Amino acid sequence: MGVCELHDLNFIAGKWHAGQLDRHFEVFNPATAEILSSYPLAGEEDVRLAVAAASKAFPGWRRTPPQDRIQYLFKFRDLLIKNSDGIARLTTQENGKTLAEARAELQRGIENVEVACGIPTLMQGYNLEDIASGIDEIMIRQPIGVTAAITPFNFPSMIPLWFMPYALACGNAFILKPSERVPLTAHLLIELLHETGIPEGVVGMLTGGKETVDGLLHHPDVRAISFVGSTPVARYVYAEGSAQGKRVQCQGGAKNHVVVMPDADLDMTAKIVSDSAFGCAGQRCLAVSVAITVGETSKTFTDRLVDLASGLRVGNGLDEGVQMGPVISPASKSRIEKLIDGGLHHGAKAILDGRNGVADHAGAFLRPTVLTDIGSDDELRDTEIFGPVLSIQQASNFDEALAILSQSRFGNAASIFTTSGNHARRFRYEAPTGNVGVNIGVAAPMAYFPFSGWRDSFLGVLHGQGRDAVEFYTDKKVVIERWPKKWSRKF
Amino acid sequence: MGVCELHDLNFIAGKWHAGQLDRHFEVFNPATAEILSSYPLAGEEDVRLAVAAASKAFPGWRRTPPQDRIQYLFKFRDLLIKNSDGIARLTTQENGKTLAEARAELQRGIENVEVACGIPTLMQGYNLEDIASGIDEIMIRQPIGVTAAITPFNFPSMIPLWFMPYALACGNAFILKPSERVPLTAHLLIELLHETGIPEGVVGMLTGGKETVDGLLHHPDVRAISFVGSTPVARYVYAEGSAQGKRVQCQGGAKNHVVVMPDADLDMTAKIVSDSAFGCAGQRCLAVSVAITVGETSKTFTDRLVDLASGLRVGNGLDEGVQMGPVISPASKSRIEKLIDGGLHHGAKAILDGRNGVADHAGAFLRPTVLTDIGSDDELRDTEIFGPVLSIQQASNFDEALAILSQSRFGNAASIFTTSGNHARRFRYEAPTGNVGVNIGVAAPMAYFPFSGWRDSFLGVLHGQGRDAVEFYTDKKVVIERWPKKWSRKF
Amino acid sequence: MGVCELHDLNFIAGKWHAGQLDRHFEVFNPATAEILSSYPLAGEEDVRLAVAAASKAFPGWRRTPPQDRIQYLFKFRDLLIKNSDGIARLTTQENGKTLAEARAELQRGIENVEVACGIPTLMQGYNLEDIASGIDEIMIRQPIGVTAAITPFNFPSMIPLWFMPYALACGNAFILKPSERVPLTAHLLIELLHETGIPEGVVGMLTGGKETVDGLLHHPDVRAISFVGSTPVARYVYAEGSAQGKRVQCQGGAKNHVVVMPDADLDMTAKIVSDSAFGCAGQRCLAVSVAITVGETSKTFTDRLVDLASGLRVGNGLDEGVQMGPVISPASKSRIEKLIDGGLHHGAKAILDGRNGVADHAGAFLRPTVLTDIGSDDELRDTEIFGPVLSIQQASNFDEALAILSQSRFGNAASIFTTSGNHARRFRYEAPTGNVGVNIGVAAPMAYFPFSGWRDSFLGVLHGQGRDAVEFYTDKKVVIERWPKKWSRKF
Amino acid sequence: MGVCELHDLNFIAGKWHAGQLDRHFEVFNPATAEILSSYPLAGEEDVRLAVAAASKAFPGWRRTPPQDRIQYLFKFRDLLIKNSDGIARLTTQENGKTLAEARAELQRGIENVEVACGIPTLMQGYNLEDIASGIDEIMIRQPIGVTAAITPFNFPSMIPLWFMPYALACGNAFILKPSERVPLTAHLLIELLHETGIPEGVVGMLTGGKETVDGLLHHPDVRAISFVGSTPVARYVYAEGSAQGKRVQCQGGAKNHVVVMPDADLDMTAKIVSDSAFGCAGQRCLAVSVAITVGETSKTFTDRLVDLASGLRVGNGLDEGVQMGPVISPASKSRIEKLIDGGLHHGAKAILDGRNGVADHAGAFLRPTVLTDIGSDDELRDTEIFGPVLSIQQASNFDEALAILSQSRFGNAASIFTTSGNHARRFRYEAPTGNVGVNIGVAAPMAYFPFSGWRDSFLGVLHGQGRDAVEFYTDKKVVIERWPKKWSRKF
Repeated sequence: MGVCELHDLNFIAGKWHAGQLDRHFEVFNPATAEILSSYPLAGEEDVRLAVAAASKAFPGWRRTPPQDRIQYLFKFRDLLIKNSDGIARLTTQENGKTLAEARAELQRGIENVEVACGIPTLMQGYNLEDIASGIDEIMIRQPIGVTAAITPFNFPSMIPLWFMPYALACGNAFILKPSERVPLTAHLLIELLHETGIPEGVVGMLTGGKETVDGLLHHPDVRAISFVGSTPVARYVYAEGSAQGKRVQCQGGAKNHVVVMPDADLDMTAKIVSDSAFGCAGQRCLAVSVAITVGETSKTFTDRLVDLASGLRVGNGLDEGVQMGPVISPASKSRIEKLIDGGLHHGAKAILDGRNGVADHAGAFLRPTVLTDIGSDDELRDTEIFGPVLSIQQASNFDEALAILSQSRFGNAASIFTTSGNHARRFRYEAPTGNVGVNIGVAAPMAYFPFSGWRDSFLGVLHGQGRDAVEFYTDKKVVIERWPKKWSRKF
Repeated sequence: MGVCELHDLNFIAGKWHAGQLDRHFEVFNPATAEILSSYPLAGEEDVRLAVAAASKAFPGWRRTPPQDRIQYLFKFRDLLIKNSDGIARLTTQENGKTLAEARAELQRGIENVEVACGIPTLMQGYNLEDIASGIDEIMIRQPIGVTAAITPFNFPSMIPLWFMPYALACGNAFILKPSERVPLTAHLLIELLHETGIPEGVVGMLTGGKETVDGLLHHPDVRAISFVGSTPVARYVYAEGSAQGKRVQCQGGAKNHVVVMPDADLDMTAKIVSDSAFGCAGQRCLAVSVAITVGETSKTFTDRLVDLASGLRVGNGLDEGVQMGPVISPASKSRIEKLIDGGLHHGAKAILDGRNGVADHAGAFLRPTVLTDIGSDDELRDTEIFGPVLSIQQASNFDEALAILSQSRFGNAASIFTTSGNHARRFRYEAPTGNVGVNIGVAAPMAYFPFSGWRDSFLGVLHGQGRDAVEFYTDKKVVIERWPKKWSRKF
Repeated sequence: MGVCELHDLNFIAGKWHAGQLDRHFEVFNPATAEILSSYPLAGEEDVRLAVAAASKAFPGWRRTPPQDRIQYLFKFRDLLIKNSDGIARLTTQENGKTLAEARAELQRGIENVEVACGIPTLMQGYNLEDIASGIDEIMIRQPIGVTAAITPFNFPSMIPLWFMPYALACGNAFILKPSERVPLTAHLLIELLHETGIPEGVVGMLTGGKETVDGLLHHPDVRAISFVGSTPVARYVYAEGSAQGKRVQCQGGAKNHVVVMPDADLDMTAKIVSDSAFGCAGQRCLAVSVAITVGETSKTFTDRLVDLASGLRVGNGLDEGVQMGPVISPASKSRIEKLIDGGLHHGAKAILDGRNGVADHAGAFLRPTVLTDIGSDDELRDTEIFGPVLSIQQASNFDEALAILSQSRFGNAASIFTTSGNHARRFRYEAPTGNVGVNIGVAAPMAYFPFSGWRDSFLGVLHGQGRDAVEFYTDKKVVIERWPKKWSRKF
Repeated sequence: MGVCELHDLNFIAGKWHAGQLDRHFEVFNPATAEILSSYPLAGEEDVRLAVAAASKAFPGWRRTPPQDRIQYLFKFRDLLIKNSDGIARLTTQENGKTLAEARAELQRGIENVEVACGIPTLMQGYNLEDIASGIDEIMIRQPIGVTAAITPFNFPSMIPLWFMPYALACGNAFILKPSERVPLTAHLLIELLHETGIPEGVVGMLTGGKETVDGLLHHPDVRAISFVGSTPVARYVYAEGSAQGKRVQCQGGAKNHVVVMPDADLDMTAKIVSDSAFGCAGQRCLAVSVAITVGETSKTFTDRLVDLASGLRVGNGLDEGVQMGPVISPASKSRIEKLIDGGLHHGAKAILDGRNGVADHAGAFLRPTVLTDIGSDDELRDTEIFGPVLSIQQASNFDEALAILSQSRFGNAASIFTTSGNHARRFRYEAPTGNVGVNIGVAAPMAYFPFSGWRDSFLGVLHGQGRDAVEFYTDKKVVIERWPKKWSRKF
């Protein structure tokens, strides 16, 4: 079956079904403008069926020993590795990023599967003998039931894998609601998971829009919701899910700053910042959006950066040598262009202007854009652009740079480029973001660390990945025991 | 200053102030009906001032090393121990429970202070060298800012201490909103904490009603809310706090079951269940509400229990030998009596009827009540009575007993009384409550375990006490570092 | 190459070599008496070369990020699973146990590889910010260098895997010294590990006797020694290795007791005890050696047990339906027979006598033997028989049973069979053994728990498997950092 | 009773006794040459009695719930704080260090008591439900029995407190064998512990020499030995204790290096290095012995250092303003002088020569000494001087500096002074010592981190302080449970 024929994008009780809504959605290759799939969206009834199947599968799965549950994950890891080319191609086709980027995100996803294979260790509880004479106390972690994740278009394979392996390894049923724009990668992930022989209903998938999200948020049997997307939707999901009594974790938008100190290694810094700002066409929640140049680096760094950025090869991610693909859609492209237009209108300068896109291409292409002189009250200052646009701001010293980035309402990531241990320590201590880089462009935590946003970039307490995921996907049960001697009096 | 003169019940920036609302509230001794204090309630402006003071104090407190912060807690522990008689008397006066009960809850509170003294260990982050060649990753826990707890009337000293020591030890500012009915114990706790020399503004107190709660919920600088109270208010606080983007943990109501198996040690069981059902006049979120008698214990256990319960000495908690005090208020007393009336009207039987109260007493007294034959759709079945009323239900075997308690919408605690390891294990595995007792009447986790409700008894993910409290009161910051060789090329 | 041609059993710097001693050793199939291999033993020079190769490989392996190191283990796991039939057959041929037993031990070994795949989590250190103002402290785990394990004949595949995966995952070089009697399984394990592409020298193997052990013990570059074998040799290795300043962990012999309470499920108990006593022909360090029957079970349990034991099918482990293989060698067979002879001579009774072996078989066969009435000072009481011999002792109650087993100088494992929670708790609290079973015959910890012997059954502090292994195979480095502002004064 | 009358320095079963050897030992004030006490040493019989008392007390102490055990430690902490002046004066009198230094070491000791107060958290085991269907596994930590620590003269209060609080909190009996030269501080520590009401026999003290050490090493009921002292004795204790099957941890000598990079803040560095080299008269196992000056710092740093060192006020530690006291004894003084003489004889230069001591003083005074040009094969290179002597070596770059310190057979501590994050990271990654400082003079881990020596500075696996101490002082017991349904078939 060719990609374009895929329209049964809801996995319920071990089988693929078409969505039951009347509305169709078209999956679109942003590099070629071709339609990859046109499928009916899932509606409330699909949610009902998927949750019912998950609820039915849960008790058996919960009773499957953790040691047995992880065998499916080991197999899943093997299948992901064996199918990584196929997965990456699908990702490039529906998302636009380059093949190398698609492979790299899958790799980060696989690492989460690997960490979840350690669940017999990670899921352990703790205990103490003799909390009082002859009385013992033990904390046991148990799975919570049906869980769901709502994931965005920018990392079709990685972000589902921030959640799914942990939810499953902990003994929960899990429903994936991928972005309706990139369901094909998700379809393949679920298909491979199914191939491991995991029991029917334990994993499900629903491809839809707001109806599906609301269906999951309001279904009483969904215990936990993980969300990654924009901040307004994150707020909605957090508030609505909480109002339904669920546990919710929501990653929102970002506006990530890097501080370039005069003592930084400028060649390295410019290369890393360029990769961070324009990689994945800037559609990463950890992409650099603003470079704060301290002192003389205003010129020295900026020159190097523009030089690198202007040389990036933009094109179809499937083509060899291409370094940057299109943004996700023509709508997104024109949204970004309008933001740039507005900024320029209010006094900003484009020292590199990527609005002209790529000739001879039907796709949603932009080129790297570098802006300076953005006014302090300009909309661009605090808006997440989610495109290949880097703003440059100037600061006269470290404190001023820190003050600039501390004003942001977002708190996903911040990096400093310096050779000074003192600057690094102060930055680490003070930067109000959950992920911090020191001479790192994309401060993405490894799978065995939490993906740790702050402020408007995250709502909740426990993050995705690693120990946090295990804590999120389990209930703690505290048991206190005392044993009377009754029976044994005879012996 | 006598207790009755206390009306400055808001602690802001190191000083006591009267609330700024026009409305007064009367603190009432439920055993004597005397007024202990009449004070003006805190309003929105008081919240504003307290949060401002806390926000101002936070940066300095956060910079105080953990090792130094715990010195205040060690002193606080000493002061609590030295003043335990005074604290317990205040608790008995404003809450009604016996002195022994007041001392016991304070002891559990002190244990939380002791655990929080271990914050330099508990607050540690984790790290790995070489996540990639030459790149290291570290997770650091940092305090989150201004935190607040909203606590109920039933444990005036213990419940504030589930939160306060951890919030402070982790480096946060903390505001206590005690129940407006029992602010005097809280006043003394805060006074003793102040006596340790803790910096001004780090700890605050606000005594008010819904205005105060809403003020805290809506103030943008309050990062975290802990709540203990009834389920409807818990739902409100969880939804409202989440809609404001805060992290929230809410303990709600309960309806705790014990299962009495035929192989239980019945003398021990009856004594423990009686203590659990009628201790603190049944106003414990871990009190037994329903005893499910399996097989012959329907008679053997019930006889013993009624015998014990009918002999309990009810009276003023300050009087020696008294085993059970009044409920919190005349309103509460009549609410409970109406619930019993309704049950009896619908067919329930009172094999011990405590509605007649205690002669010659002005207080809100009830006597232990034991009900049987409650209809399966009776309001009493699923209502939290929060008074000295025990229902008895009959089951023919273990599975039936488990089914009965699994129907409850609450999930705070459940206990089994048995000598069989098999029954204990099955109960531990299956009981859908966060706290489980085996031959234990009040399955209250020690301070170094989470106080772990499930279902409608808890909203959130992380609980009070121990490691969960530390996780709740800190933000995780993940730092990834790579060091370029630039500077050192010369050396 | 047929098994019988294998004589290059030393793996040094990625290649197989023959040992350099003049003496040959014959690997022998205990079921058929055929010679599987005759090979020259490794001597001091081989040790020198293997350690040199390991020392050379260490720095590069240590610098390989943990995330990359575990990729070899994932591959190793796959290869072990794919080759499990071949490994099991080799084990059966050189050790004698049944194919099912050989497969089962391999499975436990593979589980250790799986746990070691979690090293990026398990190897993390911990850290705290601001131990004093502006000063941070961090503990990092680093590998220790060249490590070695000396393993016994009874679990040719499992016991090497208690150590090797952890040592390697933590970044150490590792040398395996398998029992000279069962090097063929080890050869295949190392071969498969080599097949993963792990760098040369990182793993080595030396097949020899005392010269090899002493070579490893005295080589200054071997940092850590793990040993499993008999207690006298364990003592020697522990003392000698410690005198050389190494870290050493030694598992010694055992004499495991089960207590059969009158309330036990006797059918289940007899089945489990029979499996435990006679499985692997009794050559398990967790095999039951003594059943203490309490009260009436002296008769009821013993009857059932003898019934089961006498029906066990003894034969060549490769043959279908065989339930028990030979002991490791004719010498071992006659040693066991002499022990039984001696016991009978001193008054013991054989209610099942397996000395007559198996007719028509050249192998070292014994049949299950059950002894009673062993004198309290008989040699049999405290000697590890390491053969299919179960002694039965009688106790009148729980306390007496506990007293009997507490007298043993060994402390590997003890189990109780009961339905009483009280007996189980008391047993768990009091039994002086590192592994305890409740209604379990072979209390073998899963790979994510320490294999935890006590008393003469273990010398050292940290055990094999799981977190203990990680602690054993890493050094802790504590780093305290303060950053002066010098450089940054300008900025 | 005046200090000089103290001669009953053995604490056995809650009472002080004189040692039973014929030989007396004189405690000597190294600043005044006055005899503080002359007492008979403990012999083998004293060891026997102390261990017997400890063995007797152990079962009851082990059964005392951890929560109750730590109450003694909270009281002990209070008493240490209240008596800190008295303890510090005793320490100064018998050891010679200044009062400020004596108070500082006590403070580090008290911090260990504080950490041990967290034992109900630290001592928890871990557990997993359903390791196989219906089978659970749990690891419980239990105390090990009678433990002992053999401590040196240089930190009379701190080093005993590295061990004692953890041993006791974990439920063990504990015997302290302080240095025979400084028993008076130890006497007061034990006296204060006794004052807490801790049960008799739980803690003991033996003041003796080699007979006492050997008595403890050979007594079969002593399960664990902690030692701090010189490397030759550490080797002896480690080998001998291990040969007896005990768990042993031994801290030996040190030769600590600091690397001074050209980019260091030199004023700060010189001050810190001077404090580290000459504080406690250089008798710290973390004192700097060798400063490796890189590049120009050979002159710039050395000038500053000599300037500071020559101005240090040497005298009786009880006198105000004194910055450095005497070394421990005249014998030690002349040993150090001879080492300096020898070095000078072989070509070293003394740019500051402290051999002339302090006029008008009977005490064992030296002044700070700074040596350069020590030959590469001079005895001084690798000998632990344990006095106020700093050697300076020159290196041309970082790699050379690292090579110099890596040659040392010791591995206690090393520090780098730099402003470069890259140098710090490389140093942290490469320095072969267990404690590493970055711009820190005495890299002493806080009580909640292990005191982590490497190489000849430590023998064993688990260190003193924090989690390591808990691991060292407990046995792990792994319990696997399965529950048959027998009894419950009826219900």
